[in-house]
Amino acid sequence: MEHHLHYTISLLARTPATLDALLRDLPREWTFANEGENTWSAFDVVGHLIFGERMDWIPRARMILQFGESKTFEPFDRSGHVQKIQGKSLVQLLEEFARARSESLEQLRGFNLQLEDLGRRGRHPAFGVVTLSQHLASWAAHDLTHLHQISRVMAHQYREAVGPWGRYLGVLKCVGHSSP
Amino acid sequence: MEHHLHYTISLLARTPATLDALLRDLPREWTFANEGENTWSAFDVVGHLIFGERMDWIPRARMILQFGESKTFEPFDRSGHVQKIQGKSLVQLLEEFARARSESLEQLRGFNLQLEDLGRRGRHPAFGVVTLSQHLASWAAHDLTHLHQISRVMAHQYREAVGPWGRYLGVLKCVGHSSP
Repeated sequence: MEHHLHYTISLLARTPATLDALLRDLPREWTFANEGENTWSAFDVVGHLIFGERMDWIPRARMILQFGESKTFEPFDRSGHVQKIQGKSLVQLLEEFARARSESLEQLRGFNLQLEDLGRRGRHPAFGVVTLSQHLASWAAHDLTHLHQISRVMAHQYREAVGPWGRYLGVLKCVGHSSP
Repeated sequence: MEHHLHYTISLLARTPATLDALLRDLPREWTFANEGENTWSAFDVVGHLIFGERMDWIPRARMILQFGESKTFEPFDRSGHVQKIQGKSLVQLLEEFARARSESLEQLRGFNLQLEDLGRRGRHPAFGVVTLSQHLASWAAHDLTHLHQISRVMAHQYREAVGPWGRYLGVLKCVGHSSP
């Protein structure tokens, strides 16, 4: 399907409550476990999502609207959340993410985007010219990529416990597919 | 990690609210779209989860407790939900799933399982001898495999809309890994 701002906002608005329902008060054996060295736990993923709200999605949308192709986005630091989440609880992060996302959507609505604005162009440090429409669709798909990741990381903890069922459980065969 | 009944129940108890937060009132372009012929939409997945509550997880656990290895589980019909969900709304299915899961967990608690019960054995039509512990761990991992699937199916709808970001979004590279 094509990108529609309404579809994107509908999805973005639901992610904090989805993660809250899935993760809040779950035993930390699920939420702080990862897939091995240099991989992320559900806790880390929520930290990364918060960092994206502050540094990526709205700031870059604003750059597209203000500067078009004339100014390249700041590169996004995929480890930028690491320092910021140390010592925090998962509940703190879930609440921080809900607030940050709510503020982001308020700012997005404040842009009062018209259909023709979605074709406006900016400059991505790796991809070159991209449209505002692609940027916003990627924001929604990025939520889904991390929901996909969290479900995989959690299932990984039971990879031995399930015994022979492992052959039927697609999530246990998923190798991540993420960029480094 | 090893299987713990407490971890399993914690996860199973959260899935209905997670799917409700993610899917309720989302535009049907997200929830009724699939990945092509003979694949499932989010709506179909919720139907399958309900069918599993009725026909698979608790009934098979009860068979293990009552008959041990002497009686083979009924094969599970992966298309068993298809007739049952026709004409229903997604909200109806979400509510039906929440009720069914709540009843399942009540029955599970009613078994009053002790640690030694988790080693009790049953007979799976494809795998042969399995333990109650493996069966219950698989129930939780099965929730996660379908959350993984729903996030992938929904992201698939934006595979073109995201433009060059597709290379960074692992969920768009996921090929499913499910058994047929």
